[in-house]
Amino acid sequence: MKGLWLENKQLQLLTDIPTPEPSEGEALVRVLCAGICNTDLELLRGYYPYTGVLGHEFVGVVEIGPEHLINQRVVGEINAACGYCRFCLRGEPTHCENRTVLGIVNRNGAFADYLTLPVKNLHAVPDNVPTEVATFTEPVAAALEIQQQVTLHPDDRVLVVGDGKLGQLIAQTLALTGCDLLVVGRHQDKLANLSARGIKTGFAEAVVERSFDISVDCTGNALGFDIARRALRPRGTLVLKSTYAGNLSLDASALVVDEITVIGSRCGPFEAALDVLAQGKIDVTPLIHASYSLEQGLAAFEEAQTKGVLKVLLSMSR
Amino acid sequence: MKGLWLENKQLQLLTDIPTPEPSEGEALVRVLCAGICNTDLELLRGYYPYTGVLGHEFVGVVEIGPEHLINQRVVGEINAACGYCRFCLRGEPTHCENRTVLGIVNRNGAFADYLTLPVKNLHAVPDNVPTEVATFTEPVAAALEIQQQVTLHPDDRVLVVGDGKLGQLIAQTLALTGCDLLVVGRHQDKLANLSARGIKTGFAEAVVERSFDISVDCTGNALGFDIARRALRPRGTLVLKSTYAGNLSLDASALVVDEITVIGSRCGPFEAALDVLAQGKIDVTPLIHASYSLEQGLAAFEEAQTKGVLKVLLSMSR
Repeated sequence: MKGLWLENKQLQLLTDIPTPEPSEGEALVRVLCAGICNTDLELLRGYYPYTGVLGHEFVGVVEIGPEHLINQRVVGEINAACGYCRFCLRGEPTHCENRTVLGIVNRNGAFADYLTLPVKNLHAVPDNVPTEVATFTEPVAAALEIQQQVTLHPDDRVLVVGDGKLGQLIAQTLALTGCDLLVVGRHQDKLANLSARGIKTGFAEAVVERSFDISVDCTGNALGFDIARRALRPRGTLVLKSTYAGNLSLDASALVVDEITVIGSRCGPFEAALDVLAQGKIDVTPLIHASYSLEQGLAAFEEAQTKGVLKVLLSMSR
Repeated sequence: MKGLWLENKQLQLLTDIPTPEPSEGEALVRVLCAGICNTDLELLRGYYPYTGVLGHEFVGVVEIGPEHLINQRVVGEINAACGYCRFCLRGEPTHCENRTVLGIVNRNGAFADYLTLPVKNLHAVPDNVPTEVATFTEPVAAALEIQQQVTLHPDDRVLVVGDGKLGQLIAQTLALTGCDLLVVGRHQDKLANLSARGIKTGFAEAVVERSFDISVDCTGNALGFDIARRALRPRGTLVLKSTYAGNLSLDASALVVDEITVIGSRCGPFEAALDVLAQGKIDVTPLIHASYSLEQGLAAFEEAQTKGVLKVLLSMSR
């Protein structure tokens, strides 16, 4: 089969990757559409060691698996858990000690004709959700994870720093809570997507320091972290929603004096994400910048790395 | 009056400091005993700018104030709040925007014959609590703050990093919750205080990485932070209980991947601290290294800065 293979920071289109064979409890999924995420770009830059097929945001069709899923469109949770470690046993499979992660850790990913995942990771896509839209299920779930970790009240003042792909999804999902939301970024056109939905937006200068109850850094850079940190009132909560290149230098004493809470946040609930998409509560279509075929995958990555570009999709043809 | 005056990183014993005059709502307190805290040593090293009388852990007797407190032994909360800012109005006076802090920010402290504090900051010391013991009320309250911020369950595995003054108080107060507690430090003799109370202790090598639900760094240094961080399981909570010299460099991506929560923790509940002391639930006497008169204050500071020394007290004579 064809696939985009990462090895030694080099991405190449291979055509001779063996089609994966599902192990017990796994399904074989033919990929319909997949999205390029910042994590893919970071893996390409070598921030984490990984060799294999990239890609973890996808919609596919089950070809081998349990009866009720055959020919069904599905999305899939990316952490394949062992089921028996202490984290699995305490109901936290996304933190399984022995996990493989689709296109990220020891498991070939979605930028290919086929992938395999445990059947229990798969979720049927409601008929009314277009395939391109459902490709956003994984990042929408990641956005919703914030609401699993932090209790949001309607009168909470919430700041989102970053107007990229994830920032926009986080902003739209946070807006659903009715909180008092401001999104700051660097791109008027990206912020306009959110303004059009009635969300307050601005540049960094719009942030009144020490005035927000909760801030979310979606930038993954020290400057974004700093804006999110300084925005917080004492006893505020800073959600880290993006990985960072290298170490972050921070004033830990100020965290103590202001009794700040910093929370790392990663993968989230897929069913809730599919509900949000099926009910049309958020609109992901303005985030789609371009769609490429798998054969044009290298060009798609070029595009995805261009400054200011939002989501680039790969649509697999047969 | 006499007092230990800090100015330009120089501490001196002055004898001509004007006795403070209580403003409206304040009391005049004659200091009986005061403790030297690491924060005092950090102020002396110039980590924060402060000019004035040092000291914020104290027991005193009210000489001017409301009837019911006259001649009463008291301890005092150190943050003098304005009462009208948004933090005061939301019931968080320790984070008052306009606060002065006894011996730390814009308010002369306790290493003197007299101090003033708002009457509402004062708490009567129960008769059965000796003055030297009650001097620990402020740090015991700070230790108890952890339990205000983090819900502890009896089966939680909790690590305290640091066997200094604050680490020992935190260990003793955490042990009261019945959690599965380990304290690691560098000093066999200090750890022995805790072992004698049935608390598990060890050196850093005793820490099994990724196995604790909650860890508390009481060291204020990067090495201690690192031990506390690596000890945590995914979704664990790291409590920062000490200020740090300079910035801390940390792997923020790992916080995201492991969904770690980091919580800064500062001042705590005085009444709860007095209860714990009055009921003899913790024993602070092994922490008392030496007691000096105010006139010997500079020697007391020399002693307090010696490696391995625990609490040094100043007892004021008349």
